[in-house]
Amino acid sequence: MNKMKVSYAPSVRRLPSYLLIARQAQDNGDEYLSGTVIASELDLEPIQVRKDLSITGIAGKPKRGYPVQPLVKAIESYLNWDRQVNAVVVGAGNLGSALMGFPGFREHGLRIIGGFDMDSSIAGSKIYGIPVYPMDQVKSKIEELASLTAILTVPSVSAQSVTDILVECGIKALWNFTNVKLKVPDDVVVQNEDLSSGYAMLSIKCRMRRDRLI
Amino acid sequence: MNKMKVSYAPSVRRLPSYLLIARQAQDNGDEYLSGTVIASELDLEPIQVRKDLSITGIAGKPKRGYPVQPLVKAIESYLNWDRQVNAVVVGAGNLGSALMGFPGFREHGLRIIGGFDMDSSIAGSKIYGIPVYPMDQVKSKIEELASLTAILTVPSVSAQSVTDILVECGIKALWNFTNVKLKVPDDVVVQNEDLSSGYAMLSIKCRMRRDRLI
Repeated sequence: MNKMKVSYAPSVRRLPSYLLIARQAQDNGDEYLSGTVIASELDLEPIQVRKDLSITGIAGKPKRGYPVQPLVKAIESYLNWDRQVNAVVVGAGNLGSALMGFPGFREHGLRIIGGFDMDSSIAGSKIYGIPVYPMDQVKSKIEELASLTAILTVPSVSAQSVTDILVECGIKALWNFTNVKLKVPDDVVVQNEDLSSGYAMLSIKCRMRRDRLI
Repeated sequence: MNKMKVSYAPSVRRLPSYLLIARQAQDNGDEYLSGTVIASELDLEPIQVRKDLSITGIAGKPKRGYPVQPLVKAIESYLNWDRQVNAVVVGAGNLGSALMGFPGFREHGLRIIGGFDMDSSIAGSKIYGIPVYPMDQVKSKIEELASLTAILTVPSVSAQSVTDILVECGIKALWNFTNVKLKVPDDVVVQNEDLSSGYAMLSIKCRMRRDRLI
Protein backbone atom coordinates (compact mmCIF):
# COMPACT_ATOMS: atom_id res chain seq x y z
CA MET A 1 0.00 0.00 0.00
CA ASN A 2 1.20 3.51 -0.75
CA LYS A 3 1.82 5.90 2.06
CA MET A 4 -1.44 6.76 3.66
CA LYS A 5 -1.25 9.85 5.73
CA VAL A 6 -4.02 10.98 7.97
CA SER A 7 -2.43 14.25 8.99
CA TYR A 8 -5.14 14.95 11.54
CA ALA A 9 -4.88 11.47 13.06
CA PRO A 10 -4.80 12.68 16.69
CA SER A 11 -8.07 14.55 16.03
CA VAL A 12 -9.67 11.47 14.45
CA ARG A 13 -8.56 9.38 17.43
CA ARG A 14 -10.33 11.77 19.80
CA LEU A 15 -13.63 11.79 17.92
CA PRO A 16 -14.99 8.62 19.61
CA SER A 17 -14.59 10.31 23.02
CA TYR A 18 -16.48 13.36 21.77
CA LEU A 19 -19.17 11.09 20.36
CA LEU A 20 -19.57 9.33 23.71
CA ILE A 21 -20.07 12.67 25.51
CA ALA A 22 -22.41 13.97 22.80
CA ARG A 23 -24.55 10.82 23.05
CA GLN A 24 -24.72 11.18 26.83
CA ALA A 25 -25.91 14.77 26.34
CA GLN A 26 -28.47 13.46 23.84
CA ASP A 27 -29.68 10.86 26.37
CA ASN A 28 -29.99 13.66 28.92
CA GLY A 29 -32.18 15.57 26.50
CA ASP A 30 -29.72 18.48 26.28
CA GLU A 31 -30.15 20.74 23.28
CA TYR A 32 -26.64 22.22 23.28
CA LEU A 33 -23.24 21.03 24.43
CA SER A 34 -20.42 23.53 24.83
CA GLY A 35 -16.87 22.90 23.69
CA THR A 36 -15.71 24.01 27.13
CA VAL A 37 -17.73 21.26 28.81
CA ILE A 38 -16.35 18.64 26.44
CA ALA A 39 -12.83 20.00 27.03
CA SER A 40 -13.17 19.83 30.79
CA GLU A 41 -14.59 16.27 30.65
CA LEU A 42 -11.59 15.11 28.62
CA ASP A 43 -8.83 17.29 30.10
CA LEU A 44 -8.27 19.06 26.80
CA GLU A 45 -8.01 22.72 25.85
CA PRO A 46 -11.30 24.13 24.47
CA ILE A 47 -9.49 25.37 21.36
CA GLN A 48 -8.31 21.81 20.69
CA VAL A 49 -11.88 20.50 20.93
CA ARG A 50 -13.12 23.15 18.49
CA LYS A 51 -10.28 22.36 16.10
CA ASP A 52 -10.91 18.60 16.30
CA LEU A 53 -14.66 18.93 15.78
CA SER A 54 -14.25 21.31 12.85
CA ILE A 55 -13.00 18.42 10.68
CA THR A 56 -16.50 16.93 10.84
CA GLY A 57 -18.00 20.15 9.45
CA ILE A 58 -20.05 20.92 12.56
CA ALA A 59 -20.22 24.55 13.70
CA GLY A 60 -20.93 25.71 17.23
CA LYS A 61 -23.01 28.72 18.19
CA PRO A 62 -21.43 31.48 20.28
CA LYS A 63 -22.30 31.14 23.98
CA ARG A 64 -24.45 28.02 23.41
CA GLY A 65 -22.06 25.52 21.94
CA TYR A 66 -22.81 22.66 19.57
CA PRO A 67 -26.38 21.58 18.87
CA VAL A 68 -26.35 18.05 20.30
CA GLN A 69 -28.21 16.03 17.67
CA PRO A 70 -26.38 17.55 14.68
CA LEU A 71 -23.11 17.03 16.59
CA VAL A 72 -23.79 13.31 17.04
CA LYS A 73 -24.79 13.01 13.39
CA ALA A 74 -21.77 14.99 12.15
CA ILE A 75 -19.27 12.77 13.98
CA GLU A 76 -21.07 9.55 12.97
CA SER A 77 -21.35 10.62 9.37
CA TYR A 78 -17.71 11.77 9.20
CA LEU A 79 -16.49 8.42 10.57
CA ASN A 80 -18.98 6.54 8.43
CA TRP A 81 -20.35 5.11 11.65
CA ASP A 82 -23.93 5.74 10.57
CA ARG A 83 -23.69 2.73 8.28
CA GLN A 84 -23.24 -0.85 9.38
CA VAL A 85 -19.93 -2.54 8.64
CA ASN A 86 -19.78 -6.32 8.84
CA ALA A 87 -16.45 -7.71 9.96
CA VAL A 88 -14.85 -11.04 10.74
CA VAL A 89 -12.33 -11.77 13.50
CA VAL A 90 -9.46 -13.95 12.36
CA GLY A 91 -7.87 -15.69 15.33
CA ALA A 92 -10.40 -16.35 18.06
CA GLY A 93 -8.02 -16.63 21.01
CA ASN A 94 -8.30 -14.41 24.08
CA LEU A 95 -7.82 -11.13 22.23
CA GLY A 96 -10.08 -12.10 19.33
CA SER A 97 -12.73 -13.26 21.80
CA ALA A 98 -12.45 -10.02 23.76
CA LEU A 99 -12.99 -8.01 20.59
CA MET A 100 -15.98 -10.17 19.63
CA GLY A 101 -17.58 -9.21 22.93
CA PHE A 102 -16.49 -5.55 22.98
CA PRO A 103 -19.69 -3.60 23.65
CA GLY A 104 -18.49 -0.36 22.04
CA PHE A 105 -18.21 -1.70 18.50
CA ARG A 106 -21.89 -2.23 17.83
CA GLU A 107 -22.59 1.36 18.86
CA HIS A 108 -20.15 2.40 16.14
CA GLY A 109 -21.83 0.33 13.44
CA LEU A 110 -19.20 -2.41 13.56
CA ARG A 111 -20.90 -5.78 13.60
CA ILE A 112 -18.70 -8.83 14.00
CA ILE A 113 -20.51 -11.59 12.15
CA GLY A 114 -18.04 -14.43 12.28
CA GLY A 115 -14.75 -15.66 13.66
CA PHE A 116 -12.10 -18.04 12.37
CA ASP A 117 -9.62 -20.15 14.26
CA MET A 118 -7.02 -22.82 13.57
CA ASP A 119 -7.86 -24.56 16.82
CA SER A 120 -10.50 -27.17 16.05
CA SER A 121 -11.75 -27.07 19.65
CA ILE A 122 -12.73 -23.41 19.20
CA ALA A 123 -14.01 -23.72 15.64
CA GLY A 124 -17.64 -24.78 15.63
CA SER A 125 -18.38 -22.97 18.87
CA LYS A 126 -19.98 -19.58 19.41
CA ILE A 127 -18.37 -16.66 21.21
CA TYR A 128 -20.82 -14.02 22.44
CA GLY A 129 -23.29 -15.64 20.08
CA ILE A 130 -20.96 -15.20 17.07
CA PRO A 131 -20.16 -18.42 15.16
CA VAL A 132 -16.51 -19.45 14.91
CA TYR A 133 -15.49 -21.36 11.78
CA PRO A 134 -12.41 -23.46 11.09
CA MET A 135 -9.65 -21.62 9.25
CA ASP A 136 -9.88 -23.83 6.17
CA GLN A 137 -13.39 -22.49 5.52
CA VAL A 138 -12.21 -18.89 5.47
CA LYS A 139 -12.57 -18.47 1.72
CA SER A 140 -16.11 -19.78 1.34
CA LYS A 141 -17.36 -18.21 4.56
CA ILE A 142 -16.00 -14.72 3.88
CA GLU A 143 -17.66 -14.84 0.48
CA GLU A 144 -20.90 -16.06 2.04
CA LEU A 145 -20.78 -13.41 4.78
CA ALA A 146 -19.87 -10.71 2.22
CA SER A 147 -17.45 -9.17 4.69
CA LEU A 148 -14.79 -6.73 3.47
CA THR A 149 -13.30 -5.99 6.88
CA ALA A 150 -11.16 -8.35 8.94
CA ILE A 151 -9.78 -7.97 12.43
CA LEU A 152 -6.49 -9.82 12.62
CA THR A 153 -5.70 -11.40 15.99
CA VAL A 154 -3.64 -14.42 14.95
CA PRO A 155 -0.16 -15.09 16.38
CA SER A 156 2.46 -12.85 14.74
CA VAL A 157 4.19 -15.81 13.13
CA SER A 158 1.22 -16.51 10.86
CA ALA A 159 0.11 -12.89 10.38
CA GLN A 160 1.46 -12.42 6.84
CA SER A 161 0.37 -15.82 5.49
CA VAL A 162 -3.15 -15.37 6.89
CA THR A 163 -3.23 -11.83 5.47
CA ASP A 164 -2.35 -13.16 2.03
CA ILE A 165 -5.33 -15.52 2.22
CA LEU A 166 -7.66 -12.75 3.44
CA VAL A 167 -6.61 -10.47 0.60
CA GLU A 168 -7.28 -13.29 -1.82
CA CYS A 169 -10.73 -13.63 -0.26
CA GLY A 170 -11.47 -10.00 -1.11
CA ILE A 171 -10.86 -8.37 2.29
CA LYS A 172 -10.28 -4.63 1.72
CA ALA A 173 -9.79 -3.37 5.26
CA LEU A 174 -7.57 -4.96 7.89
CA TRP A 175 -7.41 -4.00 11.54
CA ASN A 176 -4.09 -5.48 12.52
CA PHE A 177 -3.53 -6.40 16.18
CA THR A 178 -0.27 -8.25 15.49
CA ASN A 179 3.08 -6.43 15.57
CA VAL A 180 3.87 -7.50 12.00
CA LYS A 181 4.15 -4.83 9.31
CA LEU A 182 1.82 -6.45 6.76
CA LYS A 183 2.46 -6.39 3.04
CA VAL A 184 -0.81 -5.85 1.14
CA PRO A 185 -1.85 -4.61 -2.31
CA ASP A 186 -2.49 -0.90 -2.86
CA ASP A 187 -6.26 -1.23 -2.59
CA VAL A 188 -6.24 -2.75 0.88
CA VAL A 189 -6.36 -0.46 3.90
CA VAL A 190 -4.50 -1.45 7.09
CA GLN A 191 -4.79 0.05 10.54
CA ASN A 192 -2.13 -1.19 12.93
CA GLU A 193 -3.14 -1.45 16.54
CA ASP A 194 -0.03 -1.62 18.66
CA LEU A 195 -0.71 -2.12 22.35
CA SER A 196 2.94 -1.24 22.99
CA SER A 197 2.19 2.34 21.87
CA GLY A 198 -0.22 2.82 24.73
CA TYR A 199 2.28 1.34 27.16
CA ALA A 200 4.93 3.73 25.82
CA MET A 201 2.60 6.63 26.64
CA LEU A 202 1.96 5.31 30.16
CA SER A 203 5.72 4.88 30.68
CA ILE A 204 6.47 8.44 29.58
CA LYS A 205 3.74 9.88 31.77
CA CYS A 206 5.12 7.96 34.78
CA ARG A 207 8.59 9.25 34.01
CA MET A 208 7.39 12.83 33.67
CA ARG A 209 5.45 12.54 36.90
CA ARG A 210 8.50 11.15 38.66
CA ASP A 211 10.63 14.02 37.33
CA ARG A 212 7.78 16.37 38.31
CA LEU A 213 7.52 17.70 34.77
CA ILE A 214 3.76 17.29 34.90
CA MET B 1 -5.29 14.66 37.89
CA ASN B 2 -4.18 17.94 36.37
CA LYS B 3 -3.87 18.26 32.66
CA MET B 4 -1.06 16.09 31.49
CA LYS B 5 0.17 16.97 28.09
CA VAL B 6 2.60 14.89 26.16
CA SER B 7 2.94 17.25 23.24
CA TYR B 8 5.03 14.80 21.26
CA ALA B 9 2.61 11.91 21.91
CA PRO B 10 2.56 10.72 18.27
CA SER B 11 6.35 10.43 18.39
CA VAL B 12 6.23 8.49 21.66
CA ARG B 13 3.61 6.17 20.18
CA ARG B 14 5.93 5.35 17.28
CA LEU B 15 8.96 4.58 19.43
CA PRO B 16 7.98 0.92 20.05
CA SER B 17 7.96 0.32 16.27
CA TYR B 18 11.42 1.86 15.98
CA LEU B 19 12.60 -0.28 18.88
CA LEU B 20 11.31 -3.44 17.18
CA ILE B 21 13.25 -2.64 13.99
CA ALA B 22 16.37 -1.64 15.92
CA ARG B 23 16.30 -4.91 17.86
CA GLN B 24 15.93 -6.87 14.64
CA ALA B 25 19.00 -5.03 13.26
CA GLN B 26 20.79 -5.88 16.50
CA ASP B 27 19.88 -9.56 16.11
CA ASN B 28 21.19 -9.41 12.53
CA GLY B 29 24.49 -8.11 13.88
CA ASP B 30 24.15 -4.80 12.00
CA GLU B 31 26.32 -1.97 13.27
CA TYR B 32 24.28 0.89 11.79
CA LEU B 33 20.66 1.42 10.87
CA SER B 34 19.68 4.32 8.64
CA GLY B 35 16.67 6.54 9.27
CA THR B 36 15.70 5.97 5.62
CA VAL B 37 15.50 2.21 6.13
CA ILE B 38 13.36 2.65 9.25
CA ALA B 39 11.15 5.12 7.37
CA SER B 40 10.62 2.76 4.45
CA GLU B 41 9.82 -0.16 6.79
CA LEU B 42 7.14 1.88 8.51
CA ASP B 43 5.82 3.97 5.60
CA LEU B 44 6.98 7.19 7.19
CA GLU B 45 8.99 10.14 5.92
CA PRO B 46 12.69 9.96 6.88
CA ILE B 47 12.50 13.45 8.39
CA GLN B 48 9.70 12.25 10.67
CA VAL B 49 11.80 9.32 11.86
CA ARG B 50 14.74 11.63 12.63
CA LYS B 51 12.47 14.03 14.50
CA ASP B 52 10.85 11.23 16.50
CA LEU B 53 14.16 9.62 17.44
CA SER B 54 15.70 12.95 18.44
CA ILE B 55 13.50 13.03 21.55
CA THR B 56 15.47 10.06 22.93
CA GLY B 57 18.72 12.01 22.57
CA ILE B 58 20.26 9.63 20.00
CA ALA B 59 22.18 11.18 17.10
CA GLY B 60 22.72 9.57 13.72
CA LYS B 61 25.91 9.76 11.69
CA PRO B 62 25.78 11.22 8.17
CA LYS B 63 25.59 8.48 5.51
CA ARG B 64 25.69 5.67 8.10
CA GLY B 65 22.63 6.26 10.22
CA TYR B 66 22.12 5.34 13.85
CA PRO B 67 24.55 3.07 15.70
CA VAL B 68 22.29 0.09 16.46
CA GLN B 69 23.18 -0.75 20.05
CA PRO B 70 23.09 2.86 21.32
CA LEU B 71 19.80 3.30 19.43
CA VAL B 72 18.19 0.36 21.25
CA LYS B 73 19.53 1.62 24.56
CA ALA B 74 18.41 5.21 23.91
CA ILE B 75 14.81 4.21 23.18
CA GLU B 76 14.66 1.76 26.10
CA SER B 77 16.15 4.25 28.50
CA TYR B 78 13.89 7.09 27.30
CA LEU B 79 10.78 4.94 27.81
CA ASN B 80 12.15 3.56 31.07
CA TRP B 81 11.86 0.13 29.49
CA ASP B 82 15.31 -0.88 30.69
CA ARG B 83 13.84 -1.36 34.16
CA GLN B 84 11.26 -3.94 35.14
CA VAL B 85 7.80 -2.74 36.04
CA ASN B 86 5.53 -5.12 37.95
CA ALA B 87 1.85 -4.75 37.17
CA VAL B 88 -1.45 -6.36 38.05
CA VAL B 89 -4.40 -6.92 35.73
CA VAL B 90 -7.73 -6.05 37.32
CA GLY B 91 -10.55 -7.88 35.55
CA ALA B 92 -9.39 -11.21 34.18
CA GLY B 93 -12.01 -11.69 31.46
CA ASN B 94 -11.13 -12.14 27.81
CA LEU B 95 -9.34 -8.82 27.41
CA GLY B 96 -7.52 -9.10 30.74
CA SER B 97 -6.48 -12.66 29.88
CA ALA B 98 -5.27 -11.56 26.44
CA LEU B 99 -3.11 -8.86 28.02
CA MET B 100 -1.72 -11.34 30.56
CA GLY B 101 -0.51 -13.44 27.64
CA PHE B 102 0.63 -10.59 25.38
CA PRO B 103 4.18 -11.54 24.37
CA GLY B 104 5.33 -7.96 23.68
CA PHE B 105 5.03 -6.68 27.23
CA ARG B 106 7.82 -8.69 28.78
CA GLU B 107 10.21 -7.43 26.10
CA HIS B 108 9.33 -3.94 27.27
CA GLY B 109 10.03 -4.67 30.91
CA LEU B 110 6.35 -4.98 31.83
CA ARG B 111 5.84 -8.03 33.98
CA ILE B 112 2.29 -8.92 34.92
CA ILE B 113 2.56 -10.62 38.28
CA GLY B 114 -1.05 -11.10 39.26
CA GLY B 115 -4.64 -10.78 38.20
CA PHE B 116 -7.88 -10.06 40.04
CA ASP B 117 -11.42 -11.02 39.20
CA MET B 118 -14.88 -10.86 40.73
CA ASP B 119 -15.78 -14.22 39.20
CA SER B 120 -14.97 -16.88 41.76
CA SER B 121 -14.60 -19.50 39.01
CA ILE B 122 -11.67 -17.53 37.55
CA ALA B 123 -10.12 -16.46 40.85
CA GLY B 124 -7.78 -19.15 42.17
CA SER B 125 -6.78 -20.24 38.66
CA LYS B 126 -3.69 -19.32 36.66
CA ILE B 127 -3.70 -17.58 33.29
CA TYR B 128 -0.50 -17.97 31.30
CA GLY B 129 1.06 -19.06 34.59
CA ILE B 130 -0.02 -15.85 36.35
CA PRO B 131 -2.10 -16.33 39.51
CA VAL B 132 -5.58 -14.80 39.59
CA TYR B 133 -6.89 -13.69 42.99
CA PRO B 134 -10.41 -12.91 44.13
CA MET B 135 -11.27 -9.22 44.09
CA ASP B 136 -11.74 -9.02 47.84
CA GLN B 137 -8.04 -9.80 48.31
CA VAL B 138 -6.97 -6.87 46.13
CA LYS B 139 -5.74 -4.74 49.04
CA SER B 140 -3.56 -7.33 50.75
CA LYS B 141 -2.26 -8.81 47.49
CA ILE B 142 -1.29 -5.50 45.87
CA GLU B 143 0.61 -4.65 49.02
CA GLU B 144 2.27 -8.06 49.04
CA LEU B 145 3.14 -7.86 45.34
CA ALA B 146 4.38 -4.26 45.76
CA SER B 147 2.84 -3.31 42.46
CA LEU B 148 2.28 0.36 41.61
CA THR B 149 0.84 -0.24 38.13
CA ALA B 150 -2.59 -1.64 37.34
CA ILE B 151 -4.15 -2.57 34.02
CA LEU B 152 -7.88 -1.95 34.26
CA THR B 153 -10.04 -4.36 32.25
CA VAL B 154 -13.19 -4.52 34.34
CA PRO B 155 -16.65 -3.78 32.90
CA SER B 156 -17.21 -0.02 32.50
CA VAL B 157 -19.95 -0.02 35.10
CA SER B 158 -17.51 -0.88 37.90
CA ALA B 159 -14.50 1.03 36.51
CA GLN B 160 -14.66 4.01 38.89
CA SER B 161 -15.43 2.03 42.06
CA VAL B 162 -12.60 -0.42 41.33
CA THR B 163 -10.28 2.52 40.57
CA ASP B 164 -11.08 4.08 43.93
CA ILE B 165 -10.04 0.84 45.63
CA LEU B 166 -6.85 0.59 43.56
CA VAL B 167 -5.87 4.16 44.41
CA GLU B 168 -6.46 3.38 48.08
CA CYS B 169 -4.14 0.37 47.66
CA GLY B 170 -1.37 2.68 46.49
CA ILE B 171 -1.58 2.18 42.70
CA LYS B 172 0.13 5.14 41.02
CA ALA B 173 -0.23 4.25 37.32
CA LEU B 174 -3.41 3.05 35.64
CA TRP B 175 -3.68 1.74 32.11
CA ASN B 176 -7.38 2.12 31.52
CA PHE B 177 -9.03 -0.15 28.92
CA THR B 178 -12.56 0.90 29.88
CA ASN B 179 -14.28 3.84 28.20
CA VAL B 180 -14.82 5.58 31.53
CA LYS B 181 -13.06 8.87 32.22
CA LEU B 182 -11.60 7.97 35.61
CA LYS B 183 -11.38 10.42 38.47
CA VAL B 184 -8.09 9.96 40.34
CA PRO B 185 -5.92 12.05 42.67
CA ASP B 186 -3.22 14.30 41.19
CA ASP B 187 -0.40 11.88 41.89
CA VAL B 188 -1.92 9.01 39.88
CA VAL B 189 -1.11 8.71 36.19
CA VAL B 190 -3.77 7.39 33.78
CA GLN B 191 -3.34 6.25 30.21
CA ASN B 192 -6.64 5.65 28.43
CA GLU B 193 -6.64 2.93 25.84
CA ASP B 194 -9.66 3.36 23.64
CA LEU B 195 -10.10 0.64 21.04
CA SER B 196 -12.67 2.85 19.34
CA SER B 197 -9.86 5.28 18.44
CA GLY B 198 -8.19 2.67 16.30
CA TYR B 199 -11.49 1.81 14.67
CA ALA B 200 -12.06 5.51 13.95
CA MET B 201 -8.71 5.55 12.12
CA LEU B 202 -9.61 2.45 10.10
CA SER B 203 -12.97 4.00 9.22
CA ILE B 204 -11.40 7.25 8.01
CA LYS B 205 -8.81 5.41 5.93
CA CYS B 206 -11.56 3.33 4.29
CA ARG B 207 -13.51 6.48 3.56
CA MET B 208 -10.48 8.23 2.09
CA ARG B 209 -9.69 5.18 -0.01
CA ARG B 210 -13.27 5.04 -1.26
CA ASP B 211 -13.13 8.74 -2.15
CA ARG B 212 -9.72 8.09 -3.71
CA LEU B 213 -8.10 10.72 -1.51
CA ILE B 214 -5.31 8.31 -0.68
